[in-house]
Amino acid sequence: MIRVAILGYGNVGRHLASAIHKANDVALVQIYNRSEVTLSEQVNTVPFTYNLSTLLPADVYIIALHDDAISEFSKAVIVENALVVHTSGGVPISKLSTRNKRGVFYPLQTFTKGRMVDFSVIPICIEAESKDDLKLLQKLGRSISEKVVQIDSNERAKLHVAAVFVNNFVNHLYHNAEVILSESKLDFDLLKPLILETAHKIENLSTSEAQTGPAKRNDRKTIEKHLNLLKDNKNKAIYKLLTKSIQDTYGKEL
Amino acid sequence: MIRVAILGYGNVGRHLASAIHKANDVALVQIYNRSEVTLSEQVNTVPFTYNLSTLLPADVYIIALHDDAISEFSKAVIVENALVVHTSGGVPISKLSTRNKRGVFYPLQTFTKGRMVDFSVIPICIEAESKDDLKLLQKLGRSISEKVVQIDSNERAKLHVAAVFVNNFVNHLYHNAEVILSESKLDFDLLKPLILETAHKIENLSTSEAQTGPAKRNDRKTIEKHLNLLKDNKNKAIYKLLTKSIQDTYGKEL
Repeated sequence: MIRVAILGYGNVGRHLASAIHKANDVALVQIYNRSEVTLSEQVNTVPFTYNLSTLLPADVYIIALHDDAISEFSKAVIVENALVVHTSGGVPISKLSTRNKRGVFYPLQTFTKGRMVDFSVIPICIEAESKDDLKLLQKLGRSISEKVVQIDSNERAKLHVAAVFVNNFVNHLYHNAEVILSESKLDFDLLKPLILETAHKIENLSTSEAQTGPAKRNDRKTIEKHLNLLKDNKNKAIYKLLTKSIQDTYGKEL
Repeated sequence: MIRVAILGYGNVGRHLASAIHKANDVALVQIYNRSEVTLSEQVNTVPFTYNLSTLLPADVYIIALHDDAISEFSKAVIVENALVVHTSGGVPISKLSTRNKRGVFYPLQTFTKGRMVDFSVIPICIEAESKDDLKLLQKLGRSISEKVVQIDSNERAKLHVAAVFVNNFVNHLYHNAEVILSESKLDFDLLKPLILETAHKIENLSTSEAQTGPAKRNDRKTIEKHLNLLKDNKNKAIYKLLTKSIQDTYGKEL
């Protein structure tokens, strides 16, 4: 039985707490947050503290805090013979205090308050400094997910940039499309089936095979027409740059 | 019973043919393609021709061809008292020959050979020049989809640009993320759960609520780190432009 404490009850902490609490062979022994919070129904029997000096014994302490807070906070976690890990894609393992055994437990997903996610399909990227610690994180990861991969800090940094492209930037393109439609009082819901199909399509097709549109087929008339339709200069610039990038990728020059 | 002929058996034609053939109160009377093709199993009992002079009587002729081919082709469709429509987001109704009654029947989706789509959730955007024709297209649309909307050519052009953002450009960001990962021999499959969740998230959240990441929270350290990690200048430029656009949108300047 792996004993786990979760330190930080924000978005990631909440989702992890629920997943770990209901997992087999793992016990969620404590939840810490710096201020009092209402625990979700699934975990409201788990001991809670906002006092770091009252941490209970555990095998793994999971720091689920903002990137900037992790380093300082890890110095204040004084535990014996336990592994202290963070959950961030963007923070190297070296930022954790050397006071404890260190590791990373990074679930590669976007978490939203109030929106359930299926942890079993979320890749858990783990890193640690000894084989035993890796084994422990592997076991913990497998208790909530079918996909646990060992990734070092450099690789994780690359993964994090790539995640910014497919999550942050993609969502921003959704937003800009919504703005374009709202100028003509068109309902954004019209695009939602297309958005879903675009994401699901690459389950079976490569991203190159899935690429379509005026940029890929070098349809200059349509590109010109689209640029004239776009009122916002930022959207014009985005349209131009991504069109150029698609054309360069598929070997056709403007 | 609405009699329909489909002219052009490419991607869109194939998908439309299957959907219309199995719909109620609609008869797919003929499929035309300029060269011989193998009809899919679902429609292999439908009469086929590659000779435009042997078109059978129908109420609606659906031209499912590339944008550039629609105008010329429509002049060659000589039918009596029937509605001739195209299926393109980017072509105005006025490009169709005035020889026949004209309309548009635009299914707002990306179609892939060999990949089934659920037509019932695909918005069908219709346009016509008389109330009767609109009624006919409304009925035809409703036979295969739960969502039929009347959209004029100007609105459809806006919709088409927006579709380029959420489909073509989004898929290109997926592709670039794949390239970034491949530089470190990381498996693109790691990102797929994130890609799906990003698309599904906006079913319930607005795109602004769903926006997260270093650009939105103005985390300059991470942005700097990411730019240093990106080897490809095109990706650097895309990262900078989209980061700036997110920051402008949410009121934080670099």
